[in-house]
Amino acid sequence: MTYQEVVQNAKKNIGPHCKVCPNCNGIACKGVIPGPGGKGSGIGFIRNYQAFRGYGLNMDTLHEVSQPDTSVELMGKTFKLPVFAAPVGAVQMHYSDLYDDLSYSAAVVEGCHAAGILAFTGDGVKSEVYDGTATAIKAQNGYGVPTIKPWRKSEVIEKIRTAEAANAVAIAMDIDAAGLTILAAQGKPVSPMSTETLKEIIASTEKPFIIKGIMTVAAAKKAADAGAYAIIVSNHGGRVLDETPSSLEVLSEIVAAVGDQTIVMLDGGVRSGLDVFKALALGAKAVLIARPFVTAVYGGDREGVALYVNQLEAELSNAMLMTGCARIADITEDKLRKL
Amino acid sequence: MTYQEVVQNAKKNIGPHCKVCPNCNGIACKGVIPGPGGKGSGIGFIRNYQAFRGYGLNMDTLHEVSQPDTSVELMGKTFKLPVFAAPVGAVQMHYSDLYDDLSYSAAVVEGCHAAGILAFTGDGVKSEVYDGTATAIKAQNGYGVPTIKPWRKSEVIEKIRTAEAANAVAIAMDIDAAGLTILAAQGKPVSPMSTETLKEIIASTEKPFIIKGIMTVAAAKKAADAGAYAIIVSNHGGRVLDETPSSLEVLSEIVAAVGDQTIVMLDGGVRSGLDVFKALALGAKAVLIARPFVTAVYGGDREGVALYVNQLEAELSNAMLMTGCARIADITEDKLRKL
Amino acid sequence: MTYQEVVQNAKKNIGPHCKVCPNCNGIACKGVIPGPGGKGSGIGFIRNYQAFRGYGLNMDTLHEVSQPDTSVELMGKTFKLPVFAAPVGAVQMHYSDLYDDLSYSAAVVEGCHAAGILAFTGDGVKSEVYDGTATAIKAQNGYGVPTIKPWRKSEVIEKIRTAEAANAVAIAMDIDAAGLTILAAQGKPVSPMSTETLKEIIASTEKPFIIKGIMTVAAAKKAADAGAYAIIVSNHGGRVLDETPSSLEVLSEIVAAVGDQTIVMLDGGVRSGLDVFKALALGAKAVLIARPFVTAVYGGDREGVALYVNQLEAELSNAMLMTGCARIADITEDKLRKL
Amino acid sequence: MTYQEVVQNAKKNIGPHCKVCPNCNGIACKGVIPGPGGKGSGIGFIRNYQAFRGYGLNMDTLHEVSQPDTSVELMGKTFKLPVFAAPVGAVQMHYSDLYDDLSYSAAVVEGCHAAGILAFTGDGVKSEVYDGTATAIKAQNGYGVPTIKPWRKSEVIEKIRTAEAANAVAIAMDIDAAGLTILAAQGKPVSPMSTETLKEIIASTEKPFIIKGIMTVAAAKKAADAGAYAIIVSNHGGRVLDETPSSLEVLSEIVAAVGDQTIVMLDGGVRSGLDVFKALALGAKAVLIARPFVTAVYGGDREGVALYVNQLEAELSNAMLMTGCARIADITEDKLRKL
Repeated sequence: MTYQEVVQNAKKNIGPHCKVCPNCNGIACKGVIPGPGGKGSGIGFIRNYQAFRGYGLNMDTLHEVSQPDTSVELMGKTFKLPVFAAPVGAVQMHYSDLYDDLSYSAAVVEGCHAAGILAFTGDGVKSEVYDGTATAIKAQNGYGVPTIKPWRKSEVIEKIRTAEAANAVAIAMDIDAAGLTILAAQGKPVSPMSTETLKEIIASTEKPFIIKGIMTVAAAKKAADAGAYAIIVSNHGGRVLDETPSSLEVLSEIVAAVGDQTIVMLDGGVRSGLDVFKALALGAKAVLIARPFVTAVYGGDREGVALYVNQLEAELSNAMLMTGCARIADITEDKLRKL
Repeated sequence: MTYQEVVQNAKKNIGPHCKVCPNCNGIACKGVIPGPGGKGSGIGFIRNYQAFRGYGLNMDTLHEVSQPDTSVELMGKTFKLPVFAAPVGAVQMHYSDLYDDLSYSAAVVEGCHAAGILAFTGDGVKSEVYDGTATAIKAQNGYGVPTIKPWRKSEVIEKIRTAEAANAVAIAMDIDAAGLTILAAQGKPVSPMSTETLKEIIASTEKPFIIKGIMTVAAAKKAADAGAYAIIVSNHGGRVLDETPSSLEVLSEIVAAVGDQTIVMLDGGVRSGLDVFKALALGAKAVLIARPFVTAVYGGDREGVALYVNQLEAELSNAMLMTGCARIADITEDKLRKL
Repeated sequence: MTYQEVVQNAKKNIGPHCKVCPNCNGIACKGVIPGPGGKGSGIGFIRNYQAFRGYGLNMDTLHEVSQPDTSVELMGKTFKLPVFAAPVGAVQMHYSDLYDDLSYSAAVVEGCHAAGILAFTGDGVKSEVYDGTATAIKAQNGYGVPTIKPWRKSEVIEKIRTAEAANAVAIAMDIDAAGLTILAAQGKPVSPMSTETLKEIIASTEKPFIIKGIMTVAAAKKAADAGAYAIIVSNHGGRVLDETPSSLEVLSEIVAAVGDQTIVMLDGGVRSGLDVFKALALGAKAVLIARPFVTAVYGGDREGVALYVNQLEAELSNAMLMTGCARIADITEDKLRKL
Repeated sequence: MTYQEVVQNAKKNIGPHCKVCPNCNGIACKGVIPGPGGKGSGIGFIRNYQAFRGYGLNMDTLHEVSQPDTSVELMGKTFKLPVFAAPVGAVQMHYSDLYDDLSYSAAVVEGCHAAGILAFTGDGVKSEVYDGTATAIKAQNGYGVPTIKPWRKSEVIEKIRTAEAANAVAIAMDIDAAGLTILAAQGKPVSPMSTETLKEIIASTEKPFIIKGIMTVAAAKKAADAGAYAIIVSNHGGRVLDETPSSLEVLSEIVAAVGDQTIVMLDGGVRSGLDVFKALALGAKAVLIARPFVTAVYGGDREGVALYVNQLEAELSNAMLMTGCARIADITEDKLRKL
């Protein structure tokens, strides 16, 4: 199978809402729920993608690098690439019933592990999803990051115990899900969380704890002060609040504020190895990618995931070669030009 | 009835000129009179809408706010939201004869009162419109703001007396109607007004007097010096002069100049609760909304008005939750990002 | 006849190249010769139009102006508006043979004179055009400005004599026609002109001498030093050199440099009374308008010209009313906002 | 034959991938390989073209220049224009088999020589292309610049010997071809090159040695330090790395850094004599043009090349006339305006 075949298969399998566009930019799917688009005007998703278009790579082939090394060490492990699959939930509703949340999670967790990276997995109103995913992660020796919604504190801590039992590499919480009022209607309210509560949650586990959904310097400081191992700069793909900035445009200032205190990752709009390069150059230590992994799974299951990861690696490696970066740490802001 | 049904009904009822566009942005209707569009190129209306697109919300869910309070106190009353229905006139001509100016005013005044906010009402060449509307406002215990055109001073003062008799919460004058030369042709000339004349008019009543149609710092100072209780930054929806700036882009400098002397409100381009949030963050104490209330009335009469107000409240409340604003006063400029 | 009927007639009469677009913005006709469009990419014309879109009017109706005076005194005469018809040549080729250069000039000269303004007229390879036009101007008591191409000095001076004999109000030369290599091929070469030569030409007459086709501060200074009564900032409608700036964007700096030494006029992209207002606010003492006068003549002959001038006056007067300008001199830069 | 006929012929001959667009701007062909477009998003090519649109010419016809001189002296020779044909390879694959790399090179070398300029020629995996082209250059008394890919040092030096034997005016290397991984797959790896290696290569010949593919100040300094006679600022038409800046936007800073140490040329997006003018004004001593020469060859062989060169000369000469430039050295940055 080739990656092009994965994409072709995905078009058949992925359901009516996602168009598997040549450029996954949030335009064709904006504001339509169910579906993969951004909320309301869809601009949160669209701007995520467009923000990357605002940077070019400073090509320079007068150097001695010929075999760039794309690997990174994070959460005590070494990964082939500084790229992780982002948590995706309710795939039956937003895509098609070829997968449900459990089978999707299993495919992306196993595919990523085999490909040398890591998948974050999602949470849901029904406990089977979270628990079943933990089982899948356990089967991969813990290579996966369960991502918990901002439920009541006791419930979050209970889910942390489940993740620990699965020996998960790390545990995450997407605190920007606090605005999903639909969950309260289903009897499982989420809410914003004070720094104090967050501190107690993080202190309850030895695992690296990652806060996803940071969009301001103020929030980044609160998360860092609460002891977050890492934060993920993310506007939730534009799906929890309309008319947010893109995650990329707030990245640099957040890195400047808390980059020496915690690890900063970026989620939102990353599609190619060049996008990975750009996010790293602007200060991220790693990136999360969501929608293209859905395409990869629906179009090629575990093999699709591997093919997509390999393509990302080839693109990132070529970008490093063409800019003279031997290692990931060499990808610095001077390798980019604001266009 | 749902708000979506209101919109569907409006499409049937609202007449040939308004297309009830998914985004009410001034493009489909530009420059066509009769109709709801901006004058000439229509850019005054279009830019009003676009100006809001230039700001994003700084999402931050690490805080303790969970039940934002959207209420405000203005003109000595408490309102559910800092939102008022703007005056709209000649609805038979610009929309359809399902309503005339009297029945439209009655619907919006009563619908707003029931929904916890307030409607501004319009004026016309024939005295029946203004007088009849005053009667409707009186029936709502004065919950309405009659808006007088800049006629000759004696006539303005006579109309103030009528408003006082109706026990109106406040009285307004849209001084930017001064350019409507068509009124002179109908024997009822309007004209610009000196600060001195304005001072005399305002001094003639105990009611809060509001000046609508301010677009410059200089005019804001004149209105404040004349004793205006509040000013409304507005370009009249782009309908009295082509090629003006948007009201939102001049708001901040006007607030900076007169914000400690008078209350500054904003009219123009507000559609959603997120727009309300943005205008408040840029210094407005309240906003006026015109065209969407026409949709609400033509599509659902008093109930349509209530459904639209409820939607605005839900959106504003969610925006406050997602940015950590417990009260309206917490909506400050640092909650926005210029995009 | 109404102006709308003039426009409808023009669509029938004006020939295949001009589309009489609702917005005469240079897009439909770009780069097609014969025709009215800009040369090559057409951007010189298109940018002229777009430059005006970059400014909005600062509406303010709190003042005592109610009857603005649009008149100006220039070249020793009083005109109803600071607007002149620009020279247009080869109308048979670029439009249709309903008019030739002589009958077009006669129509625009007489129509403008009757409407209280002035027309500039063109020049050609054949002397009949220039001479015949001079006769038409003489018949209007000199109310017209013959515009001479930058031929050899002796020939220019000879044509000045003809203009003097016609008692022309003023005489102009469009020095940017220097690049029309096609004229050399027809045995009548034009060329750039040194300040020295220009000085001699200007010194040869008592009439006010106007230099059209200035786009830089340096050229403006040379023209002023040579004794020009006025200069016209113009890129020749984008028809002599592709990819020039718009005339409006260079206006302010030219006025700043030579505005106390000579009169600065603007040509290029002016369509409405609001555009006239904007050009004056940015420092021009008057404007020239070309293409809309062609529409006016082909659609309504002398009456069409009058209707267009009347519309410009109404628009300019309304813009002055809505911004508090009693006289043309009150139209200053603070009445505009850069958008 | 006219240039218009060349273009019409090219449409028939050039094959399925190139559309011979009226504006050769990289949009119709983006991302499709084989074909002439930019890699991936195609933005490297598209931005090259668009960057030129960001500058306008400062027209001024008040001066004494009437016969501009477009000639330049470079590499010890005098050329009619500071314009060279850029190397183009694999024409059978990307265009049509009307030409192969040898016959294309012969046509462009001979056509350019006859027209008073110079062609750069390409390199390939098979040695016949490079060697055959050298023979064609030799037949034109060395009027051609063989361009070598960044193979292993020994191989580069061997190819330099071949060029010397052909008496080539100069020798070039396109070091940005280092990212063409496809060449390694064909057994002929290319790679980035250290300054040290480059120094040895340049030191191995007496010929002027030109480095093509510089996009940063750092790389420019390395090339200059290694002894390059000239550098060519180029992103390889956007074909070796997606999402680079345009070459024009990095030109000025590179000229500022190394312009007193080496000759700086520009490649990318140049289509007309006005574009040549702009690149020179921004500091280039000469430009290279690629795609339009392919059109010229496929549409008119040697005569097509001559017609295109003549058109460039006429356009450049007219631009100089309209801006007051007697010689190429007079084309300075103040002749442009950033739009």
